[in-house]
Amino acid sequence: MNFDAKLDVALARLHDEGRYRTFIDIERKKGHYPHAIWTTPEGEEKDITVWCGNDYLGMGQHPVVLDAMHAALDATGAGSGGTRNISGTTVYHKRLEAELSDLHGKEEALLFTSAYIANDATLSTLPRLFPGLIIYSDSLNHASMIEGIRRNGGEKRIFKHNDLDDLRRIMAADNPDAPKLIAFESVYSMDGDFAPIEAICDLADEFGALTYIDEVHAVGMYGPRGGGIAERYGLAHRVDIINGTLAKAFGVMGGYIAASAKMCDAVRSYAPGFIFTTSIPPAVAAGAAASVAHLKTDQNLRDEQQTQAKILKTRLRGLGLPIIDHGSHIVPLIVGDPVHTQKLSNMLLQEHGMYVQPINFPTVPRGTERLRFTPSPVHGPKEMDALVKALDSLWSHCALNRAELAG
Amino acid sequence: MNFDAKLDVALARLHDEGRYRTFIDIERKKGHYPHAIWTTPEGEEKDITVWCGNDYLGMGQHPVVLDAMHAALDATGAGSGGTRNISGTTVYHKRLEAELSDLHGKEEALLFTSAYIANDATLSTLPRLFPGLIIYSDSLNHASMIEGIRRNGGEKRIFKHNDLDDLRRIMAADNPDAPKLIAFESVYSMDGDFAPIEAICDLADEFGALTYIDEVHAVGMYGPRGGGIAERYGLAHRVDIINGTLAKAFGVMGGYIAASAKMCDAVRSYAPGFIFTTSIPPAVAAGAAASVAHLKTDQNLRDEQQTQAKILKTRLRGLGLPIIDHGSHIVPLIVGDPVHTQKLSNMLLQEHGMYVQPINFPTVPRGTERLRFTPSPVHGPKEMDALVKALDSLWSHCALNRAELAG
Repeated sequence: MNFDAKLDVALARLHDEGRYRTFIDIERKKGHYPHAIWTTPEGEEKDITVWCGNDYLGMGQHPVVLDAMHAALDATGAGSGGTRNISGTTVYHKRLEAELSDLHGKEEALLFTSAYIANDATLSTLPRLFPGLIIYSDSLNHASMIEGIRRNGGEKRIFKHNDLDDLRRIMAADNPDAPKLIAFESVYSMDGDFAPIEAICDLADEFGALTYIDEVHAVGMYGPRGGGIAERYGLAHRVDIINGTLAKAFGVMGGYIAASAKMCDAVRSYAPGFIFTTSIPPAVAAGAAASVAHLKTDQNLRDEQQTQAKILKTRLRGLGLPIIDHGSHIVPLIVGDPVHTQKLSNMLLQEHGMYVQPINFPTVPRGTERLRFTPSPVHGPKEMDALVKALDSLWSHCALNRAELAG
Repeated sequence: MNFDAKLDVALARLHDEGRYRTFIDIERKKGHYPHAIWTTPEGEEKDITVWCGNDYLGMGQHPVVLDAMHAALDATGAGSGGTRNISGTTVYHKRLEAELSDLHGKEEALLFTSAYIANDATLSTLPRLFPGLIIYSDSLNHASMIEGIRRNGGEKRIFKHNDLDDLRRIMAADNPDAPKLIAFESVYSMDGDFAPIEAICDLADEFGALTYIDEVHAVGMYGPRGGGIAERYGLAHRVDIINGTLAKAFGVMGGYIAASAKMCDAVRSYAPGFIFTTSIPPAVAAGAAASVAHLKTDQNLRDEQQTQAKILKTRLRGLGLPIIDHGSHIVPLIVGDPVHTQKLSNMLLQEHGMYVQPINFPTVPRGTERLRFTPSPVHGPKEMDALVKALDSLWSHCALNRAELAG
């Protein structure tokens, strides 16, 4: 058996399709983000501006977060030293869970090492708790939800993205007595569009289904206390399980679900991905708790992010560049071809010192390859200006179409 | 559909079987570990000694680790702000991966958010890279390996724990042309016994199979540079993929695999659990790298841990208490009954201020319920003395048998 040859085949497939990923090696400088140092493959160091990060509000360098992390390191040390069950539950974890259940108005919250594993572990465990469970999954759900739904071979149905008619049709065709759950996201990160949460909850009520929402691209950024889109529209109480991340707007690491005490207790007790893994470091929990608490009151940061996104969209639209605009903080610029997208990304990085990762198939459909910008409160007018000018000139240079590819 | 009633059923099942887990809420004090503060369910704070942690060498409070984490927080901030592909690859991640590939003498290493997800993501991705792959899995493999092997419905065979004859018989019955992989651990954490690595590698050679070893309970602690049991016996070059954790002996958080450059590249490119999740915080990577580097030279810590384990085993054996001894650092004390085990654990905690979590079915077979001690260099003679005396008196108090339940 020639295993190496098989690895060559697998890797060649990615190269052939232009999907082979090369990681850009960067180093943020605290207090200067979105500025960072890029170490080129040749080992040279260059100043760049990061335009594709998910530290959406710059909380990763906020003093309140860093102070909490330093303090926890000094008080308690580095790792937790165990799974939650075996010496790895600390006051830091409990405080963070309390902060999160309060954020979402739920009885409890349950921490995971990431929102990926929170989705995967929870969605794969629910069919064990509710035998015969059918999961209705939006066609654009994140990989972590798909992995969780697929994992144990439970019943699943994929409905067309945000299409309530399709969802209703599919649900109506199933056994009315079967336990059901609708799984969806509040903000879809590739287009930046929103789910019709209220209509989905209405449909769930009609069919007696549970609801599961992934708010990873919304928590911290939407709602009067940063509770996400469900909070923004006063719908959190209608969603049974809310999934969120501590690694994007909250600027640290980790993921969670918030739900009823009973639901959290059952997932806690049955999900291998929760049980058999070391809990997050106390300092990480402390930083995340400080961030969540801070963003419950700092509406300014949320407003500034939205303003920055609006400015960028307005300016790009003014130049006729084909952006997608659903009113969220995410600014996708459609290039429509994987080779051009990669080339634009390379030119932005190498010639203009601006880092934005190309997004290609299968993350987005072929023909909609894009650059995806995440403006934030820490991107100032100077950075914005430079980006807009660079894009304008590159667009002309590459003779790309203007405005006709927008979604 | 009454979902609450179904949750009640699922939770009642655990209560009925005596398997419902209650987390002990503790807070370590940096520099004083294994001493910690236990917050009782009533909110009272009590001093305790932790005897079941996986911070095996006390690196979670080592200055070299904490200094590196403080420095990284100051230099670069809290979270990485992205997946490895989208702005989340930093010099800290690259340095840690270089430290790890060097540790295991492999071309490359690949970081994951945990060793759980490293096992799960890698083992579930290999069948995609090697179509038709049959995975031969030791019957006592960790939950994370089982989850990974099961995930995509690939071919799997379970062989009897450490039983080479059984493994050979099962492999010989399969198609000689099918790609094969043997997955096992180097130290099994519940009994503390070792795998026959060399014999397994010989068998793999004979059948043209790949080998995958989980060294999470060995890295940092065994081998002249802390490379694990494979390094100890000079066998690392014969194992294709080595899995390890940064959350136990290295005292921080995260997991990894070390393998050929091609293997790492393929897993990096195909594993959703690697691709679609935020990378670990730079400060966590910095702390882990410092820990790995430190333990490459600090043989004293390894020696002290082994000495502590030997002392504890010798003393418990001297009292006729039924321990299992396979010569590793793990000291399982067999109680043989879930109710007694829980009661002993409670009495140790409440009356003696000593924290050791009971280990029950399904983590171990029924009838072998146990307390599992993890003595370390930071457990001094005073702590050891107190533990031995407490166990002696509790054993008499509960009228438990001596010495006849040992494995």
